[in-house]
Amino acid sequence: MHFEVTHTDGNARRGVLSTPHGVVQTPAFMPVGTRGAVKAITHRDLADVGAEIILGNTYHLHLRPGDDLIARAGGLHAFIGWPHPMLTDSGGYQVFSLAAMRNVTEDRVEFRSHLDGALCALSPEKATDIQAQLGADIAMVLDECVAAEDGGATGEAGAPRASRAAMERSARWAARARTRFLQLRDDPKSAPEVIVTNPGQAQFGIVQGGTDMTLRTESVQRTREVAFEGYAIGGLSVGEPVSVMYDVVAHTAPLLSADQPRYLMGTGMPDDLIECVARGVDMFDCVLPTRNARNGQLLTREGVLVIKNARYAEDRDPPDAGCGCYTCAHFSRAYLRHLYVSQEMTAGTLMSLHNLYFYLDLMRRIRDAISFGSFEKLRSEFHQTFSRRQCST
Amino acid sequence: MHFEVTHTDGNARRGVLSTPHGVVQTPAFMPVGTRGAVKAITHRDLADVGAEIILGNTYHLHLRPGDDLIARAGGLHAFIGWPHPMLTDSGGYQVFSLAAMRNVTEDRVEFRSHLDGALCALSPEKATDIQAQLGADIAMVLDECVAAEDGGATGEAGAPRASRAAMERSARWAARARTRFLQLRDDPKSAPEVIVTNPGQAQFGIVQGGTDMTLRTESVQRTREVAFEGYAIGGLSVGEPVSVMYDVVAHTAPLLSADQPRYLMGTGMPDDLIECVARGVDMFDCVLPTRNARNGQLLTREGVLVIKNARYAEDRDPPDAGCGCYTCAHFSRAYLRHLYVSQEMTAGTLMSLHNLYFYLDLMRRIRDAISFGSFEKLRSEFHQTFSRRQCST
Repeated sequence: MHFEVTHTDGNARRGVLSTPHGVVQTPAFMPVGTRGAVKAITHRDLADVGAEIILGNTYHLHLRPGDDLIARAGGLHAFIGWPHPMLTDSGGYQVFSLAAMRNVTEDRVEFRSHLDGALCALSPEKATDIQAQLGADIAMVLDECVAAEDGGATGEAGAPRASRAAMERSARWAARARTRFLQLRDDPKSAPEVIVTNPGQAQFGIVQGGTDMTLRTESVQRTREVAFEGYAIGGLSVGEPVSVMYDVVAHTAPLLSADQPRYLMGTGMPDDLIECVARGVDMFDCVLPTRNARNGQLLTREGVLVIKNARYAEDRDPPDAGCGCYTCAHFSRAYLRHLYVSQEMTAGTLMSLHNLYFYLDLMRRIRDAISFGSFEKLRSEFHQTFSRRQCST
Repeated sequence: MHFEVTHTDGNARRGVLSTPHGVVQTPAFMPVGTRGAVKAITHRDLADVGAEIILGNTYHLHLRPGDDLIARAGGLHAFIGWPHPMLTDSGGYQVFSLAAMRNVTEDRVEFRSHLDGALCALSPEKATDIQAQLGADIAMVLDECVAAEDGGATGEAGAPRASRAAMERSARWAARARTRFLQLRDDPKSAPEVIVTNPGQAQFGIVQGGTDMTLRTESVQRTREVAFEGYAIGGLSVGEPVSVMYDVVAHTAPLLSADQPRYLMGTGMPDDLIECVARGVDMFDCVLPTRNARNGQLLTREGVLVIKNARYAEDRDPPDAGCGCYTCAHFSRAYLRHLYVSQEMTAGTLMSLHNLYFYLDLMRRIRDAISFGSFEKLRSEFHQTFSRRQCST
């Protein structure tokens, strides 16, 4: 993997990430393809809205259909028929948020599958092996996520201690994951049980530390000591106030390597993207555009349009008059409302298509603005029209 | 509307149907867009698989969002954003199969909405008015459908009597529907409560009579006396044996006008299409390709492929090796099985896309064969590979 920052504008960076499956322009937004498919969207529509890289979930794909099966099919790219870049998470987030039971020890985390209750386990090495079999272009290390209810990121009493323990364990796990990754890369014959489907795979470390700046600084140091191809900021967008999230990103991003990609995990709303680009982030992922679409919420330059509202029943305007997507070019709010109210599957498809286009078009405009030194102008204009409140029109 | 038979091969006919929204090549298959959307498929994918005309359901659209609302939006074409030809049924079939209650009198049929139990009524005039407001290129008359459980098409004892009454009432209703249609066309000001959204709309009559050839002959005579732009064969594919259906079509189609389109309603499996073209039918509609797709059944040239079968878990072949559709060009049976088992929405989309392409490609091949005088060769080759049994490969 190769990464080059081609333009900067303040702390915002434009760059090019070259992977074994093609090039990703950054800042980039990665649609989430949990089980090897971005929900409600075909790969064709996904490419057409401008997605250059998508994310797959190690937890889900490990449980079903299984990384062994996917490896025998030649890896995730071949199995799902997506020839462009991909990233897989480590499965840690789902284990800590979705699994029915979990038991964390220094060695590993045990959990029960949410599908059938089967007892499973994930260790730093196992998460690395699974991802080697999946063969995405970027793999993530297993980290210990502190659940929001444990005060992980909310700044409540007890949070710093919980975050320190999780941060320190994540750092130790990162070193183990890297050792295993390098073993699979440099001496795959020493692990014949693992089918390495993408020899050019890169591995990113994850910075933890909740909302404690001291812990974040220490986590950056310890993670960078391991030496990865890129670094993610984890443990945010888990319930903390947006301003706190922005502060943590502003503190953390500049501590990361200037010539390596910086990935903010699980964020966020459109204004989060522009604000975190302003703080030096290069990559994002979030289920928000697709999940909200299926729940009838369209993102527009004015904010959130809730399509089921009666006021749209005879509204012949497209969701967003200035938008160039397929949905806005062909369909009215009234028709989309009818499809949503009638529970037609195409409601989810057409609204996901719009929301993804909205996100990816925003990233395109951000990249262009950085090139031309007009990022602050774009940022200011964006905030003048965009509000997280429901649209009034 | 203009229809021209351009080629014949035995009883099979190739033709061109010109409508206010474009040309339809016949024999044609019409995907069903019940509520103004073909389930799981965007209009873009629909056009790409070769659909030239789609069907909308008067019953569903009348109940929600309402034909008044659709008329104010400019008609169904404008409301749903499909600029190509469309046909609407009369709503009769759904009233007789879906509504919670129904009470048929000579004047009209009363029923309760399956959505909210509201008391509704449909008369020959009302069904004509609703369709005038929807503005499809072809409207159908309201007919009285004899439910299969009443022996309507099964040839059981009592069936002839039930079918005669329904056939005679349908003939009287057809005349009333035509009178209203001509009033709306020639003197729309006399019915200011109806917004005629497509002045070029055509109206088809429907031949009934169950499986009784005498009744069918009489129904053809009485329906042709009314003089429509085209004629449908109704009351088949409701549970009768396939061979009986073929016999009724073989008896009925040649009695219909040679220079007007013949439409077999609600049929069927791929072999039904080819067999009924051989008996002189020009137009078909059926929910089978899309409904079966959502239930995990793919139509292939060998028959029905049930994607959830364990044998496909690691099958890297496309659903149908000879198929040119998007799904077969890009995805394996193993991936489609994974999507289906995981209940991903794209399973329904990708499999609907394949099944529709399979149907529409079959119609293309049928049309070409009729042009070249090789229809019997195609028919025989088709039956050599196609079976209604599950695929063995």
